Amino acid sequence: MRGTVLRGPREVELCDLPVPRVHGPRDAVIRVTASAICGTDLHPYRGELPGFGVGTVLGHEFAGVVEDAGDEVAHLTGRRVVASDLVACGRCRMCQRGWHYQCPEVTLFGYSTVVGRSIDGGQAEYVTVPFADVVLAECPDELTDEQALFTGDVLATGYTAAERAEIPLGGTVAVIGAGTVGLLAGMCARARGAATVVIADPSAARRTAAEAQGFIAVRPEQLASHGSAQSVIEAVGSDDALRLAVETAAPRGTIVAIGAHHSDAAPLNSGHAFARELTLRFAVGDPIAVWPEVFALVRTGRVDPAAVISHRLPLAEVGRGYELFDRREATKVVLLCSDVAG
Amino acid sequence: MRGTVLRGPREVELCDLPVPRVHGPRDAVIRVTASAICGTDLHPYRGELPGFGVGTVLGHEFAGVVEDAGDEVAHLTGRRVVASDLVACGRCRMCQRGWHYQCPEVTLFGYSTVVGRSIDGGQAEYVTVPFADVVLAECPDELTDEQALFTGDVLATGYTAAERAEIPLGGTVAVIGAGTVGLLAGMCARARGAATVVIADPSAARRTAAEAQGFIAVRPEQLASHGSAQSVIEAVGSDDALRLAVETAAPRGTIVAIGAHHSDAAPLNSGHAFARELTLRFAVGDPIAVWPEVFALVRTGRVDPAAVISHRLPLAEVGRGYELFDRREATKVVLLCSDVAG
Amino acid sequence: MRGTVLRGPREVELCDLPVPRVHGPRDAVIRVTASAICGTDLHPYRGELPGFGVGTVLGHEFAGVVEDAGDEVAHLTGRRVVASDLVACGRCRMCQRGWHYQCPEVTLFGYSTVVGRSIDGGQAEYVTVPFADVVLAECPDELTDEQALFTGDVLATGYTAAERAEIPLGGTVAVIGAGTVGLLAGMCARARGAATVVIADPSAARRTAAEAQGFIAVRPEQLASHGSAQSVIEAVGSDDALRLAVETAAPRGTIVAIGAHHSDAAPLNSGHAFARELTLRFAVGDPIAVWPEVFALVRTGRVDPAAVISHRLPLAEVGRGYELFDRREATKVVLLCSDVAG
Amino acid sequence: MRGTVLRGPREVELCDLPVPRVHGPRDAVIRVTASAICGTDLHPYRGELPGFGVGTVLGHEFAGVVEDAGDEVAHLTGRRVVASDLVACGRCRMCQRGWHYQCPEVTLFGYSTVVGRSIDGGQAEYVTVPFADVVLAECPDELTDEQALFTGDVLATGYTAAERAEIPLGGTVAVIGAGTVGLLAGMCARARGAATVVIADPSAARRTAAEAQGFIAVRPEQLASHGSAQSVIEAVGSDDALRLAVETAAPRGTIVAIGAHHSDAAPLNSGHAFARELTLRFAVGDPIAVWPEVFALVRTGRVDPAAVISHRLPLAEVGRGYELFDRREATKVVLLCSDVAG
Repeated sequence: MRGTVLRGPREVELCDLPVPRVHGPRDAVIRVTASAICGTDLHPYRGELPGFGVGTVLGHEFAGVVEDAGDEVAHLTGRRVVASDLVACGRCRMCQRGWHYQCPEVTLFGYSTVVGRSIDGGQAEYVTVPFADVVLAECPDELTDEQALFTGDVLATGYTAAERAEIPLGGTVAVIGAGTVGLLAGMCARARGAATVVIADPSAARRTAAEAQGFIAVRPEQLASHGSAQSVIEAVGSDDALRLAVETAAPRGTIVAIGAHHSDAAPLNSGHAFARELTLRFAVGDPIAVWPEVFALVRTGRVDPAAVISHRLPLAEVGRGYELFDRREATKVVLLCSDVAG
Repeated sequence: MRGTVLRGPREVELCDLPVPRVHGPRDAVIRVTASAICGTDLHPYRGELPGFGVGTVLGHEFAGVVEDAGDEVAHLTGRRVVASDLVACGRCRMCQRGWHYQCPEVTLFGYSTVVGRSIDGGQAEYVTVPFADVVLAECPDELTDEQALFTGDVLATGYTAAERAEIPLGGTVAVIGAGTVGLLAGMCARARGAATVVIADPSAARRTAAEAQGFIAVRPEQLASHGSAQSVIEAVGSDDALRLAVETAAPRGTIVAIGAHHSDAAPLNSGHAFARELTLRFAVGDPIAVWPEVFALVRTGRVDPAAVISHRLPLAEVGRGYELFDRREATKVVLLCSDVAG
Repeated sequence: MRGTVLRGPREVELCDLPVPRVHGPRDAVIRVTASAICGTDLHPYRGELPGFGVGTVLGHEFAGVVEDAGDEVAHLTGRRVVASDLVACGRCRMCQRGWHYQCPEVTLFGYSTVVGRSIDGGQAEYVTVPFADVVLAECPDELTDEQALFTGDVLATGYTAAERAEIPLGGTVAVIGAGTVGLLAGMCARARGAATVVIADPSAARRTAAEAQGFIAVRPEQLASHGSAQSVIEAVGSDDALRLAVETAAPRGTIVAIGAHHSDAAPLNSGHAFARELTLRFAVGDPIAVWPEVFALVRTGRVDPAAVISHRLPLAEVGRGYELFDRREATKVVLLCSDVAG
Repeated sequence: MRGTVLRGPREVELCDLPVPRVHGPRDAVIRVTASAICGTDLHPYRGELPGFGVGTVLGHEFAGVVEDAGDEVAHLTGRRVVASDLVACGRCRMCQRGWHYQCPEVTLFGYSTVVGRSIDGGQAEYVTVPFADVVLAECPDELTDEQALFTGDVLATGYTAAERAEIPLGGTVAVIGAGTVGLLAGMCARARGAATVVIADPSAARRTAAEAQGFIAVRPEQLASHGSAQSVIEAVGSDDALRLAVETAAPRGTIVAIGAHHSDAAPLNSGHAFARELTLRFAVGDPIAVWPEVFALVRTGRVDPAAVISHRLPLAEVGRGYELFDRREATKVVLLCSDVAG
């Protein structure tokens, strides 16, 4: 089968690889119908993650059909499914509490050993999914493959942000960053009760995309002029975004940081946070915990994640997809894998 | 001035009365521009409240302009305002916690001594408002008088229901009763994150009104066939409605009873509630606590309470308004008082 | 082996029975060291549960050592363990949310088919435990077998009551019923932050037991004179207890009903509940969800459940244990099974 | 009357000053019976707050008797009272939500203009209290003056820390810093349900004081060896303490920072906080919001703040009190003002 492999910085290649197999009783092999490139994929693509394993099949957002399955998950064979980007065992103490990202077995598809052990990802014709009873969800009939794949990653992240931001019904929510995650978080924040969503991004193109979704879009330096917000969602992951989020929060407000933070010494404006008695919460999207509700939001049209797709390409053009995304000429690239696989 | 007075069962009269005055430093006199008849008003109208004081000026939903004000609230003079239906001192321990209905001074406008002491209401040209710094809110410019008066009673009730029902983002909410409060609660539940709102009412006309708002509307006996709901809002106040609400709740679900319950021995299906580990919460709408957020919901168009108005009548036709409402030929009657007052 | 079997009303017999075996990969067979008689056991004992299966081995509170185990739980062999009274699969959607009592597979040991399918209980020398990876916990070394068996049922119930009663730190908690569950709930409420715990019971002996734990103990009819309580724990399960609980709650207070309610028409004082805006929550103790924390409370001496034990008897005297308990001459009977088994 | 005035770094003087008077209708003048020196007082004492007004009467922890009162608070005359260290109007939108530190009128007694406008403090024979209906509480008879003055500042801070730290009943709480606030926070955390409280401080004397309260006391660098804690209370206010708090928190844990943070760029280990999905909450103690509950904790002996007092001195020896405290030879100094005033 063909799968997208990282060869070096800005070098992805669609290679011929052995078809993945079922190894254990909870494994399932999926024939991928649709996959996507996520902002997170740009870090290895750009060579920003030293030690990222060359040869890893990339991709952690994908939907498809179960082709083969181990004994304990045999009932999934033939089902149309979507995978969670994060893999967890479902049985440990952390999983029992619904804290799948804290599972000792946690890993991400196609992300080498950055989080946990390396497993191949889904920008491919086939992919093996471990703990398939937990990591896979059956797609509701009403969802397209495209819509479904969002529920396994970035839409779940937006959902988590909205759930944990303590948004007052009728309140104002500020979102820092109008990338895919920021837009989806804004949609979820509105669905969660925000009367007003203000989204800040330096990119004019992204602000236009945000306005198309009905948000007030501003440059980061203009955000202060829109007043403070009881809930702030930080969807960038940079030190500057975190500071801006803290500055933007109203007294006793809550900031949810869903951007991937890696710093050991982010310069926090703690004096400001103390004076306003703020709550700063770091959160990771957890598809496994929220699937039924996320499916319901999409099924009823409350949120349409496909609105953020800018490009649909066949898997064969995955290289071009990365290039467009890397140059910020694409907001979201979906790869159609089934025509290749057919 | 003219005010609506109850003479006896189903006998309201627009009487000439002395213009109300400022008595204390926190009193304000309002020239009423718009008032409404609430379902609660039907209880005294129908003679269901023995001991209800004949001569009470009716009405607890109204907006207008401050004509005169005591020393401590002088800054309100000339302002366009809406009143909370419930009156509270704003300074006691209960008010400090934001629990205004539990204030020892609590009363309702135009409701005789049913709750606290008797004060005249707002189906009139003028009305005196005590504790005006707390009981009045200034209307945002974007709200019409009509919209505003809802924020002082039934919309706040719907808001409270949605806030306290622990609605999961993307969850299903069932509403028992499609009267004004039920409809507004349904709107607020949707704004709060419900993917699906199912509303049950025996009246075909009310079900039609509910469908017009985009809800799934069913007969009460059909509700079970739509599955259980994580959050249920009981907006009737009867024993049967409460039982139906309990039956409808999903495991670990929450029922918020906002209907006015008066029973000393409502037959609760406690075995069912125990088996499903349900939470049953009784709640009273509290405009004072939630005004900024409710205004924001209306101002941004997230919720339009005026959608439930069926009739707009001049104050002079208040008698006809009560008749229509009593016969269920009106869903909501707004009285235009300013043309009388002008 | 010998096990306690119900022959008819007030007729228990210690019978010779086949030693239970491992049937499936998640089963474990325990050699019981200590077991207890629970208030719940009196219902079948008194013949109050028509259809309760004659021949069921009784008992749902027990600790012991794993003698044999299926493939998936083989690591438990030889371990000192305590069982949860409620059995759940640990893998369904309900279990994943930590709502084990709502699991479709839910059952209770030794309780015939009252809740779910019938499985034999632990007032015996040996017992088979299904879903042993979920239903069993390893005992910390610091806990005696006696202490441990409480953590699998009534102490978990008291814990759940205290957790869900929204007790303010420094608040007053009222407990209705000074049986074992009431006493343990009172201990947990104090550990949870209550400054004052008032416990109401008609039995003088039980009030004495409550006073021995440092609680204020009153007759039910005296409770009102002690003022209202922000949190009320109803630990009886009767209609009267529920009404008293509602009457006792302070404005905006919370009642947690942990008594087993079976009524289809408990006469609820809903008018009072509405006027005070109360929350009434039905809850079932869930050992599986709270074990680590309950173990810590006992290990550090914050709560000592063994303080409620009145009698320790060899398993051979189980009949006398039931008689004493039935006549209210015992508050809690622990059966020492290991000397029989040795 | 005599009052403690700051003359310059490490120079306090007991001066003869005019007796403070009632200026407005909500003012009260208190004859101080007991006052205390707080760690916060050391900042101006040590000259660490440039611009701190020379001549300010120091002290924000005090109890006494109301000698004179304005019209709106006349009912307080003659009452035994304690003051909140923070002053708030009680009537604005922030105060109505119970967020007194966010009141636009907020200030601290005796703290110059560091927070809000300057008002004289209570290390004196008399002091004027603004908004006395809100800022003063009547002392319960059961509390000594000494105990009472803690409820107006540091014990309320400890209470707030425990309330907002989301402590699981039976959980482990880590406290960073064993000064007065840390010790009181530890006591409150235990009262709130912690099974284990571990407290970290570099000072051997402070660790001894912590052990005397039954806590596990360790050096900061040893904290990691005691495992992580679901709830962490940071009671120092330094950048290092904040980092240590973040490192100590268990997955999905909560850190409450009650130390006074002033940094604009505290080096936050945000990568760690993200990987563990932590919540970091900044909180200020708010006596006004929590008095009844704090009084109950002290009255029932659940918490005894007087246990942290090391020195009791007459007001005349206030200079020595500051010296001892500055040299860390005192843990808490109480000034007895009434014998001076008598």
